[in-house]
Amino acid sequence: MNYKFAKRNDYVKASEIREILKVTENPEIISFAGGLPASELFPIEELKKVCFEVLDKDGEASLQYSTTEGYLPLRKSICKRMATLGINSTEDNILITTGSQQALDLSGKVFIDEGDTIICESPTYLAAINAFKAYMPKFKEVSMDSDGMIMEDLESVLRGNPNAKFIYTIPDFQNPTGRTMSLDRRKKLIELANKYDVVIIEDNPYGEVRFSGEKIPPVKHFDTEGRVIYISTFSKIFAPGLRIGWICADTSFLEHYVPFKQNVDLHTNIFSQIMTYKYMEMYDIEEHIDKIKEVYKHRRELMIQCIKNYFPKNIEYTLPDGGLFIWVELPSNVDSTEVFTKSIANNVAFVPGNPFFPNGGFKNTFRLNYSNMPDDRIIEGIKRLGKVLYEFC
Amino acid sequence: MNYKFAKRNDYVKASEIREILKVTENPEIISFAGGLPASELFPIEELKKVCFEVLDKDGEASLQYSTTEGYLPLRKSICKRMATLGINSTEDNILITTGSQQALDLSGKVFIDEGDTIICESPTYLAAINAFKAYMPKFKEVSMDSDGMIMEDLESVLRGNPNAKFIYTIPDFQNPTGRTMSLDRRKKLIELANKYDVVIIEDNPYGEVRFSGEKIPPVKHFDTEGRVIYISTFSKIFAPGLRIGWICADTSFLEHYVPFKQNVDLHTNIFSQIMTYKYMEMYDIEEHIDKIKEVYKHRRELMIQCIKNYFPKNIEYTLPDGGLFIWVELPSNVDSTEVFTKSIANNVAFVPGNPFFPNGGFKNTFRLNYSNMPDDRIIEGIKRLGKVLYEFC
Repeated sequence: MNYKFAKRNDYVKASEIREILKVTENPEIISFAGGLPASELFPIEELKKVCFEVLDKDGEASLQYSTTEGYLPLRKSICKRMATLGINSTEDNILITTGSQQALDLSGKVFIDEGDTIICESPTYLAAINAFKAYMPKFKEVSMDSDGMIMEDLESVLRGNPNAKFIYTIPDFQNPTGRTMSLDRRKKLIELANKYDVVIIEDNPYGEVRFSGEKIPPVKHFDTEGRVIYISTFSKIFAPGLRIGWICADTSFLEHYVPFKQNVDLHTNIFSQIMTYKYMEMYDIEEHIDKIKEVYKHRRELMIQCIKNYFPKNIEYTLPDGGLFIWVELPSNVDSTEVFTKSIANNVAFVPGNPFFPNGGFKNTFRLNYSNMPDDRIIEGIKRLGKVLYEFC
Repeated sequence: MNYKFAKRNDYVKASEIREILKVTENPEIISFAGGLPASELFPIEELKKVCFEVLDKDGEASLQYSTTEGYLPLRKSICKRMATLGINSTEDNILITTGSQQALDLSGKVFIDEGDTIICESPTYLAAINAFKAYMPKFKEVSMDSDGMIMEDLESVLRGNPNAKFIYTIPDFQNPTGRTMSLDRRKKLIELANKYDVVIIEDNPYGEVRFSGEKIPPVKHFDTEGRVIYISTFSKIFAPGLRIGWICADTSFLEHYVPFKQNVDLHTNIFSQIMTYKYMEMYDIEEHIDKIKEVYKHRRELMIQCIKNYFPKNIEYTLPDGGLFIWVELPSNVDSTEVFTKSIANNVAFVPGNPFFPNGGFKNTFRLNYSNMPDDRIIEGIKRLGKVLYEFC
């Protein structure tokens, strides 16, 4: 047999994170690898009541086929919540997606022809890279500092790539670096996008999980021409297992997204859409998010304290004001995949940094997650990892 | 602003069915348009108990991120159920998808490069056409009779298209025609696929909803070389709103599907996967399917009787042994979209047949759904539609 697969198969491999997560299924392993929320915070008892209500009041509709755009009351309540972040929208601007991951895949479908250029932060979210890769673009990376994308570098990329399809950015507590784009740079980003007439895709899964520093409005807040496609999710503030994300964008964009979404999965799980809506009607999700922030703030502080205590001094790391991740830079001659192998032998996992760079080349980095481990495992894990690092640095 | 969308946008438009379903949201309208199961049969009371159990026993896992391949106990129970249809598999052959629609989109991703040829029945499932169109193939249609695809025609297409990527078929109670491929043709299909070394995608959403005639094993039952990719779903036997489908295929195929699935939505809603599994553990799904079959059999018989009574005599229609649809052929000079317009004015909806032909050209056809309307509306709707048809035929 000699099957002929499409060319895009050569670009998309099983993600490194996925293979790593397989290793970490072993409960012996202290894993700082995934991007998992703290599951002990899920509102399980509340959801028992919510599910009963959904089935009791909306039983048939919650199990039947539904509309591609998503459950109207949920779309309206998303608009209300986004207004508090400084984003004005109506339900016509909202498309419910099967997790924000689907919004990324759909963005690839809507915009990317083979060989097109797209612009992203360096490094950026691994699963966004892989979602876009299925459409075979060229990636132009924009270097970052602690205030996010460096705008001079972005402008030079825009100048050199006048047909770039979009700029992909995660401005708040970025995955993988934990960095946040400053207020001034957000304004500058809009200014440049207007000047070079390019679309911005703002991916904001972590924005509502800020536990220190001052709130900065989303890039979309500064959008003067409706060119920002804003993507977010309930995964980090509610429950990722339900796969409920959304796109907020001008209807001239959604006209392109909706038919593709329809062909991809008809509509998002309607039972879980109504669950999510009813949960917010019956309970106070802001109170729930406050609990999450408190726990993550504590874990982040504990992990940073342990890094200070146990890591070699010639290692750099970020100090996130929110989200789930710390980014570590080793001396430039150290390869974090070698550290990983040794670390796994000591039952500690993280994600090596190289795959977060679409064009590769920064092997001396790795990502740590602090949201999913209790105190004792954070202390023990960072201690062990520190020991391993002393062998390399 | 001058946004540059990908070329594939020109191929994929909002589906006609979708636009039609919008019209039919008006409760005044008697709709034979959609492919909706009878929602009054959903096991709502049972699912109240199931949801409580899921949250009580698996609360954290049911709301957390999960594996791309799907919930292992569900994959195992799917294998067991498929064995009763004559398909041998292990859990390694199963990938849970976000509805079987996602399996179609992923098949496009895995196999189709722009300009590739794919082979399908004429007519075929509209949303499969649209899912594949996003990858810009050429469609070669194989004509059908009441026994399904005509094998002489298939062989001539295979001979003329030696690089065809796959044959897409819905052998049981096909959407839109309600036709079933005969046993002999299934064997011949495998023989031809082996001879011309081509993949078969067998889409079987309706196979378990057979209410008359003798059971015929799926095409995959006759697969001697592991070249059949079998797709099915819980949408017609349980609840479409939960979006739980699956692919059963050789691992050499799933190696390609899994990374794409990961990039498309990470994994299928795990809460609904566990719900589906637990429902089958706690209740007898076969008993539930028997109820569905009984109702659909009755509605199909009633609709056929009404067609006999109220439609002009020069109209042809299929007599399905299962599934959800009857296919109607009008005299060749009649355009069913004109009938549709007139019919909607009389508050009756169906789906005009032309869009089910990927290359167009059969305007004198339409599809009727009988699963979703109670007796009185079937009688009244077919009566009114008959009156309209007498103006055209």
